[in-house]
Order: sequence, then structure tokens, then C-alpha cells
Amino acid sequence: MALIVQKFGGTSVGSIERIEQVADKVRKFREQGHDLVVVLSAMSGETNRLIELARQISDQPEPRELDVVVSTGEQVTIGLLAMALIKRGVPAVSYTGNQVRILTDDAYNKARILQIDDQRIRQDLKAGRVVVVAGFQGVDEKGNITTLGRGGSDTTGVALAAALKADECQIYTDVDGVYTTDPRVVAQAQRLDKITFEEMLEMASLGSKVLQIRAVEFAGKYNVPLRVLHSFQEGPGTLITIDEEETMEQPIISGIAFNRDEAKLTIRGVPDTPGVAFKILGPVSAANIEVDMIVQNVSHDNTTDFTFTVHRNDYQKALGVLQATAAEIGAREVVGDTHIAKVSIVGVGMRSHAGVASQMFEALAKESINIQMISTSEIKVSVVIGEKYLELAVRALHTAFDLDASARQGE
Amino acid sequence: MALIVQKFGGTSVGSIERIEQVADKVRKFREQGHDLVVVLSAMSGETNRLIELARQISDQPEPRELDVVVSTGEQVTIGLLAMALIKRGVPAVSYTGNQVRILTDDAYNKARILQIDDQRIRQDLKAGRVVVVAGFQGVDEKGNITTLGRGGSDTTGVALAAALKADECQIYTDVDGVYTTDPRVVAQAQRLDKITFEEMLEMASLGSKVLQIRAVEFAGKYNVPLRVLHSFQEGPGTLITIDEEETMEQPIISGIAFNRDEAKLTIRGVPDTPGVAFKILGPVSAANIEVDMIVQNVSHDNTTDFTFTVHRNDYQKALGVLQATAAEIGAREVVGDTHIAKVSIVGVGMRSHAGVASQMFEALAKESINIQMISTSEIKVSVVIGEKYLELAVRALHTAFDLDASARQGE
Repeated sequence: MALIVQKFGGTSVGSIERIEQVADKVRKFREQGHDLVVVLSAMSGETNRLIELARQISDQPEPRELDVVVSTGEQVTIGLLAMALIKRGVPAVSYTGNQVRILTDDAYNKARILQIDDQRIRQDLKAGRVVVVAGFQGVDEKGNITTLGRGGSDTTGVALAAALKADECQIYTDVDGVYTTDPRVVAQAQRLDKITFEEMLEMASLGSKVLQIRAVEFAGKYNVPLRVLHSFQEGPGTLITIDEEETMEQPIISGIAFNRDEAKLTIRGVPDTPGVAFKILGPVSAANIEVDMIVQNVSHDNTTDFTFTVHRNDYQKALGVLQATAAEIGAREVVGDTHIAKVSIVGVGMRSHAGVASQMFEALAKESINIQMISTSEIKVSVVIGEKYLELAVRALHTAFDLDASARQGE
Repeated sequence: MALIVQKFGGTSVGSIERIEQVADKVRKFREQGHDLVVVLSAMSGETNRLIELARQISDQPEPRELDVVVSTGEQVTIGLLAMALIKRGVPAVSYTGNQVRILTDDAYNKARILQIDDQRIRQDLKAGRVVVVAGFQGVDEKGNITTLGRGGSDTTGVALAAALKADECQIYTDVDGVYTTDPRVVAQAQRLDKITFEEMLEMASLGSKVLQIRAVEFAGKYNVPLRVLHSFQEGPGTLITIDEEETMEQPIISGIAFNRDEAKLTIRGVPDTPGVAFKILGPVSAANIEVDMIVQNVSHDNTTDFTFTVHRNDYQKALGVLQATAAEIGAREVVGDTHIAKVSIVGVGMRSHAGVASQMFEALAKESINIQMISTSEIKVSVVIGEKYLELAVRALHTAFDLDASARQGE
């Protein structure tokens, strides 16, 4: 008998048949006596269809009106699911972001939730109704419709769970949990029963797209237990929660994340004077290019080499900016590489274990993989390597850190 | 420099191209200095698509949730038109029924407008913005989304015009005005420059589907000048207004309306006792069948014949009910006919002109058309005839009452 917020994504409600399946699932939970709030995305493809309509009118549709248009996607699914529940004899009611009232700021297309009024929902739960809420949307102080940006339905789910002090926020998706790494790369990858918010954040930001980063941040901030589950397969999924028990049993590394979205740029022979980093990165950020990893090496002849990574889509733009900078500050040359990959080991356990980084480097060295850049944080070590070594590196690390399915079955 | 409410229907906003055309049209009016409120329907086909989704879940979708779903159709078009206007440099803002706030009762799927808050719209108009409002929808006292039922966008337009005391409510549609009769039946049918609310009501209820009856009633009640125009052709359209000048010049008959939607039922040899009409029609109305024309003839042998018409869709049901009644009250027989048509002449001028009915009967007699039933009101005479005579009757009446295009050109 718990209060559970369940969020179903676009593919889970992508057809009438799927919506009926979700209704069956919700009914089962209801019959177990749980109080349920269900958050829905638009039917898969619908948000894109609506954006496409707007794009046909203008390349840059007016943001307020774009939100008026795209917010209809979720409004359709909540009505349909509520109908499907009522058909099954399960009392239900649907609410838009405005009806709940999910108050946001007025940053159309990427609004942030400021406050959630839980009065109406609590009354409905008390009366035995399942409450079906439109994800991804809210309303500003003046009553204008806003949307939270792509993937915002996860955030709606977590925010509702926080506001209602729900026992759990369940995110239903097309995978059955969070894995030690991508099973398409490593066959022995395995589902994690549990992972901490911090680890999940690192995994998510490194390209494991199971959950929206904002939703995980939100869940961590308000300590909302978050569970990732498969929409149509039974199973416990993965629970994302705070790190309650720092025991010895805890694995040092929870997962291996990776991405191929980045490109590397190096400016060589930079006169090594104070403020040179700003001189190089200032124009890059002024061009609205986000920089990820940054490495600076001191060289022998009073010059330095400066390397950083950007998203591959920004590579050409960044190259232009950097060449202009090089000419200006008298650097020797600019070189770049788009065939790189970033591989990271993530785990709260590494806090208390020395030598994790060197264990990583050793595993890569064994496979003769050259490391081009290194960056570390409290619970993560990332390296940049040649893209062609990516799969090899991930597999080697997965084995080296005892993550392979067979290796852990003995625990 | 007037305040004009313009309503565009589903075909007028049925594609992005059409929405752009409407935006061009609105801009032209704006450039003439008018204050504009634009009411839109959903893109043609969209409301049906949404209802179909709901029907796939349930034959009888829960009414509240159905309104949540179908109201999204108009929300999409208002956002798109506002974008298209802003792209043209015309300041614009869109509002849903809830945002305006169009307060209705809570009769989902067929709600009635109770009150319109004009504050927000007036502020926008003052600030030079075109206000784009979703037709067909409102919100009840508790904040639940409601819809006004099919064709409700006309009603939204008229209600907004009434609330704002607009100078005119323009209904843009796919015909260029109200005609003396259906041009597909009578080639000489002509567009009326002007028609009274009462006449329009009779025309509309008799099957001239240019405007929703409720919208005309509303316009008459609040004396909102209503103009029917073609969305994409220039022209003055038809103005529907109060009968200000009852002059001699006024034509006696404004138009000929007709429909083929009805069927006729007769119960013969009914013992003629008090209360017999109720005994016959009580069970019919209890079966939710609407009755239109009713005629009772006294016969010689203390029995009576009783005839009435119903919608053709209700014919079989009505026949069953009537046969049961006949057995109960000892009537001789029940007969029916689905091959009938109703033809009506409509005009406020007939109030002051005697002999209009007999002129009608004479014209029909000349063509040897047998009249099966007659019913009259202040400004209308209706007859039921055999369906096969319909076109002939309409043409004969159109000529007899001087409505043919050539006949009136001499005026």
C-alpha cells in the first residue's frame, strides 16, 4: 500500500493497443491497493509531427505558440488512458499541466518547474481515483502553457513524486533497467539492481540514455527513489537511490559508459602566458560551443599544447574559431580529430579505493590502446581513445572490473 | 476601425498552406486598422481522427476524457495561426477556452457557454495584438475542459462577439453566403445580401447547413450582426441581422429550404378519446425519438388518423414503438413511408402578406404535386411531399416567389 508515481514514455503509449496494455498494468497495481499517479508522454512520433507542422510555418516558431501546439500531444494520451482505465472499472481522471497546476517559469520550450499544487491530486487519490497527468508541460504564473523540453516527462514524474512525497517514482521504458554497459557492445553486460543518483548522473551524462539527466538530478535533490523498468516485461528493474550502505560488498565500479559524439581539437605551440586558457576558450564559448574535456600540457620551449573536446556537430565551427585564435595569439598550429571516443568507468566505490585509475590504464595498455586524454572526478575516470578501439576498450574494462555476468553470478 | 470577430472553419485551416492564407487575410484586415479576434476550428479531419482514437478504446468514451482529447484539435490550429501572424510581423497571441476563460456548464461534449471573461482579450487588443481563440471549447467551474459539441466554433465566435460587443461576427466558410435555395437544385438560386435571424433559423433548421443553429440563436438573442463569407474568395457575403426595416420592398419569401432526412408514420383508426395524442407520442418520446411535424385528422366513424415525421435513422425504431401502441389502444393499422421530403418557404415578409400559403399550394398543384402534410409558423410554411417531386417542387416555388436570379435582377 504505497503511493507510486509511474511514468510511461512515448513508445509505451505509441498505439491504442499499447495504451490498453498500460491500462492493464496500472489496474494490476491499483488492485494491489497502491495509490497511483500516472505521468504520460505523447504517442511516439506525435511531438515530432507537431514540431514539423510548426516548422512548416517558420524555421523559428514563436516559442510561446510552439508550446501551445506541442503540449497537445500529452493531452491526447492522458485522455485516452483515463478512458481505458474507466472502461476497466478503474476510476480515473486526467489532468493537463495547467489543471494540476504545475507552475513553471516562463522559459518556453525549456521551462523549469517551480512548484506543484498537490491539492487536487490528493483529493482524487483519497477518493480512490487513479490520476493521469500530462508530462512535459506546465503553466507559468500568467497562465501561459509551457513545456519542459525534450524528455521532460521524466522530470514531471520525479517532480510529482517529490511534491506528493511518493514512495517511489517508476520510469517505464523500453529497457528493463540500467546496465553495467551497453549490451550491444558487451554481451556479458548485466542489469544493475541498484545504482546511486551520482552514478546514474555520470552514466546518463556519458551517453546512457535511459533517463533524462534533469530527472535524475531532481530525484537526487529531493531524494525520490527512482526505478527504471520495462513497460511490458516483468522484472524488478533498477532502483536509483541514495548511497545508504557503503559496505565492502559494494562493487568498486558500477558501469562503463561511453560515447562517440565528441571531437578533439588541439592548438599547439601556444606562448605560455597567464590567461592563455581564457584567450583560447573565451571565443569558443562566445560561439555557443560547449566544451567537455580540457587538457593542457606544458612543453619545453615556453610554449604549451592545449586540447579540448566538443560535440561532433560543433567541430567545424570550433575549428574555425580556433584557427582565428591561433593566428591572433601566435600559436604554431591547430589540429583536430573526429575519430575519437570517450570511455568512462563510473562508481561511488572508487572513492574509497585507491588505484582505480591505474587499474583502468593497465587494462587498456594490455590491449595496446593508446590513451589520448584523461579526466577524472570523484566517482568517474574518463579517457579519450581512438574510435576504432571503443568496443575493445569497453569489453576489456568490463572484464577488468569484474562486471561480466558470469563473474558476478558467484557473489 | 471596428472590432471584428472572425471565425474560420476546419477546411479554412485544413493545411499549413490554408493557415498561411488565413494569416494573409487577417493581416489585411489588421492593416485596415480593425481590432481582430480570430476563432478557429481544428484542421479538417482532425476532430474525427481524435474521436476515432477514443472509439478504438471504447464505443462510449467517458465524456470528460473525450473532451480532454478532442479539444486538442483547436489548440494546434490557434498556435499555428499565431505563429504565422507573428512571422508576418503581426503581433498575435493564442488562447485556449480555458485561458480566455470561456466558462461553460459541465455537460461534457455538448456544454453551453455561461460567461466569457473579456479582460485578457481587451488588454491584448489594446496592446495591438490579434487574439486567436480556440473554438468549440471551454472550461467548467472546476477547471475541467469542456466542448460545445459539433459546430460549436460558430457559437464560440458569436459568444465572443457578444461579450466583446463586437461590431460584426464574420463566419468564414466554403460558400460565399446564404442562398435563396440550394444552387445544386436550382441553378437560378442567388446569394442573399441580407437575411433576418428568424429566417436564418428556419433555413438552418430545415437543412441549409451554412451555420449552426445555436450560433444563430445566440446572435439573435444578443443582436450580434453575423456575416457569412467565403474564406478564400472576395465578396460581401450575407449579413444576418435583425429586421430593422419592414418595408414594402422586402421580398415576401427569402428562401426555399428542404430536407430528405425525415420519414413519415401514420397510425390509422385510433379510437378518438381525450389523451390519445399523448398515448401515441408518449412512448415515442420515451424511446428518445424526436418528432418533427404532427398532423391529426378527424375521421367519420369516431376514430382518427394520426401522422408524424421522425428522422429517417429513427424510422425502424419508431415503427416498432408505434405498432406496440396500436395493439394496446386498439388502432386499426400502422403505415409508414421513408420516401418523403419536406419543402418550406421562409420569409419574415409573409407576416404581413395574406395568402402566401395558398400561393405555395397553387404552385405545387400546377405541377401536380400532391401535398401529404402541412405545417405552418409565423414566417414559414412547410409541406411534406413525395421525395421524387422534391427538385421539381423547389424549382417551382423558387420561380413562383420571384426568387430566380433573372427575376430579381430587374428590381
